[in-house]
Amino acid sequence: MSAPCQRLTPALLDELRQIVGPRFVIAGDPEQLQPYSHDEVAEEEYHALPEAVVRPQSADEIARILKLANRERIPVTPRGGGSGLSGGAVPVCGGIVLSLDRMNRILEIDVENLCAVVEPGVITNDLDAAARERGLFFAGYPMSLQSCFIGGNVAENAGGGKAVKYGVTGRYILGLQVVTPEGEIAEFGGKLVKNVTGYDMIGLLVGSEGTLGVFTKIVVKLLPRPTRVVDLLALFPDPETAIRAVPAIMTGARIIPTAIEFMDRLSAHTACRYLNEQLPYEQAGAMLLIELDGNDAAQLEVQYQAVGELCMEKGAIEVYVADNATTQERIWSVRRNIAEAFMVVSPHQSLEDITVPVAAIPAIMPVLEDLSRRYDISIPCYGHAGDGNLHVTPVKNPAHTLEQWHAMLPRILAELYRAAHDLGGVISGEHGIGHKRKAYLHYSLDPASVDLMKRVKRALDPNNILNPGKIFDLP
Amino acid sequence: MSAPCQRLTPALLDELRQIVGPRFVIAGDPEQLQPYSHDEVAEEEYHALPEAVVRPQSADEIARILKLANRERIPVTPRGGGSGLSGGAVPVCGGIVLSLDRMNRILEIDVENLCAVVEPGVITNDLDAAARERGLFFAGYPMSLQSCFIGGNVAENAGGGKAVKYGVTGRYILGLQVVTPEGEIAEFGGKLVKNVTGYDMIGLLVGSEGTLGVFTKIVVKLLPRPTRVVDLLALFPDPETAIRAVPAIMTGARIIPTAIEFMDRLSAHTACRYLNEQLPYEQAGAMLLIELDGNDAAQLEVQYQAVGELCMEKGAIEVYVADNATTQERIWSVRRNIAEAFMVVSPHQSLEDITVPVAAIPAIMPVLEDLSRRYDISIPCYGHAGDGNLHVTPVKNPAHTLEQWHAMLPRILAELYRAAHDLGGVISGEHGIGHKRKAYLHYSLDPASVDLMKRVKRALDPNNILNPGKIFDLP
Repeated sequence: MSAPCQRLTPALLDELRQIVGPRFVIAGDPEQLQPYSHDEVAEEEYHALPEAVVRPQSADEIARILKLANRERIPVTPRGGGSGLSGGAVPVCGGIVLSLDRMNRILEIDVENLCAVVEPGVITNDLDAAARERGLFFAGYPMSLQSCFIGGNVAENAGGGKAVKYGVTGRYILGLQVVTPEGEIAEFGGKLVKNVTGYDMIGLLVGSEGTLGVFTKIVVKLLPRPTRVVDLLALFPDPETAIRAVPAIMTGARIIPTAIEFMDRLSAHTACRYLNEQLPYEQAGAMLLIELDGNDAAQLEVQYQAVGELCMEKGAIEVYVADNATTQERIWSVRRNIAEAFMVVSPHQSLEDITVPVAAIPAIMPVLEDLSRRYDISIPCYGHAGDGNLHVTPVKNPAHTLEQWHAMLPRILAELYRAAHDLGGVISGEHGIGHKRKAYLHYSLDPASVDLMKRVKRALDPNNILNPGKIFDLP
Repeated sequence: MSAPCQRLTPALLDELRQIVGPRFVIAGDPEQLQPYSHDEVAEEEYHALPEAVVRPQSADEIARILKLANRERIPVTPRGGGSGLSGGAVPVCGGIVLSLDRMNRILEIDVENLCAVVEPGVITNDLDAAARERGLFFAGYPMSLQSCFIGGNVAENAGGGKAVKYGVTGRYILGLQVVTPEGEIAEFGGKLVKNVTGYDMIGLLVGSEGTLGVFTKIVVKLLPRPTRVVDLLALFPDPETAIRAVPAIMTGARIIPTAIEFMDRLSAHTACRYLNEQLPYEQAGAMLLIELDGNDAAQLEVQYQAVGELCMEKGAIEVYVADNATTQERIWSVRRNIAEAFMVVSPHQSLEDITVPVAAIPAIMPVLEDLSRRYDISIPCYGHAGDGNLHVTPVKNPAHTLEQWHAMLPRILAELYRAAHDLGGVISGEHGIGHKRKAYLHYSLDPASVDLMKRVKRALDPNNILNPGKIFDLP
């Protein structure tokens, strides 16, 4: 790995202090640096201490930091809310963590142009709340919205809970101000829904995992907030029957739901115990959480009746309707907390997010059963079934030693990724590659395709100082 | 301009004939080459003859052609349906025109995964017709759909008539097989609605105007086809009043129409005369064509009543409702044929497509009036008002000499583009830069932003052989 390996000298630390102010440089004290050594990936092998954390407050400060880092070949790892799931914000090559937490202003909610202008450190939930006050919403709603930053959502092209109907983060990014790895400030797009003036650099930058530039201002598209939401909780006897209902819902009813979330029994059970919550999971081997939204009560009722009947036809045991915000939040809270609940059960697990064509998801279930049996581990599965995006989560068997676990996990992942590929899928639908999955990139991309990505990286970051060691290694 | 300037020798032509078969290489006869010397940009200064036209039938053949061209430094200009409006398919540096017309197979309509797999030479209308048979549709519907190729739509990130609700072409491109300028075949995405496995190369390639790669297979997302469509034709006393109603419709009714198209009186009049069609344009100084779609007749009626009332509140003289396909096609045909109708009136015109924030479009109208008065020309205006995307079209005054026209046009465009920029807009919303607008790119992008684009181009096409002379010149 040709990541830059120059160290921060006391003189360079002084330069950084001059740029952002001494209060906003953390260095020297491992205890203070520790919170910046990891994201939500639990395994310690994916953690790494930075030499310093720098907390700038403007694009200008960031430009000066990057000019310095580029000149001195110091790695810089941008960090948002730290809620990532692929190690994207972890400074694997040391150097500087560039924390965007102080750039947290909502600069504008522009109702007439249906958009917001924000800094990258705005908590996504705060943006959505500000939009709500004007009857609008941010449709690229991620599952970790209470802690994640909008800048991180853009860097990872976060998916989330409304993607079946509304698509993912990238669809809502109309403009970006970005500081390049060499410390130049560039601007793309604006309050514009159509723009073909030169290459779509926004398209390239969204999802680039902080390796091509640091976002300093983001124009986010907002939509009129639907006034009504209904959730259906459909119980199925087993995961296969539940999953087989998904393509039928997508194509059978001429209705595009906001979300179709899948939870197997173990996932629902674990999250309910963690939250001390009651869901009727005992009756069921798996469940689908289907959300519909709109502005017309009568039409929404027609729609949820149709979807409910379709579920029953496809083998559901029962379909519960949640049409008030309290019950809806209880159900969604279970779904949102599955990952955290499993983290409490065991840090020795691997939260995956393979994506396959929707019609292929029934075919993935026997693969998981087979893996689970052969490796003698449990593999709970939940996720965004309506997008073909499943959080398959191999969990260490307490009867196995750590050594056994570390030996088997790469083999399990390789088998899982190969199965996803064989079904027309990829290794990550929303969490990204980071450094957690970079050894597996070839399961989804052939060498010619990876080569093009590396060329883009080298073209924009010739000294490989911005978030080095992520997605792929450079020779 | 460092475009490659090597010429095609007889030996190289023989090599090309061996790759695609002698019938599919056109060379030597200017008459046969002439149709490949232009797109829909009428002005002759934007036309250029290729040395040869090559018509391959597979990705493999294209890879071999590009390897040869890259080795010999021969310019290659990919060409779709030739319906572009920025000169993108014009071989300004000579060399080879790579016509994709023989790669016109719809490989698959996959109803379960709501997508199609097509070759680039499929006429977009044929794709939509094949989808219609399965109750689906292609929502990235361009205005020239009866002649354009889907590959060209992707290369230009074409906009079109349904973008207010459904967005533009790029939103519907899930997968691409692409031949690189060096003749390698790469694949990105697939039948996947979520995918963050490495950089979003699809995002970058869409709208890259044939300068970064040649698309050879395209996975297109399809949607359930709405069963009902209603069009409103709202007549206004003058363009300002009509345009001022647009932001109100976008935000006032909580309804997102499929389209809000604007036509000033001159545009509607010219198209009606061209088609021998009757629209009530005599009564009005401008009109809005507003389309709504859905599956529920009652709900659609509620929606169009609300939008109609809003138009009346905002100063409409009258609102006509077209709820049958025949009348709808008559109205849309007028809208679609405006450009062609003006072309018949005079080839000395410049069809523009500036885009501004929706709320800023009322502010563009006085700018057009002022330009029209000062330069003593007519500037009809029509277009996708709901996207802020307006086809401002300066037309030569017959009283002016050609010399006068050629002297004033660059100044008119510069003023127009500067005005768009000052309102937060850009010089092109859907037609692209090509070579027609490259001298004006700096009105929308600062040097740092253009520099990043040039780096990307050089990284993927080091010898600048693929569609050289487009978007920007390389030093």
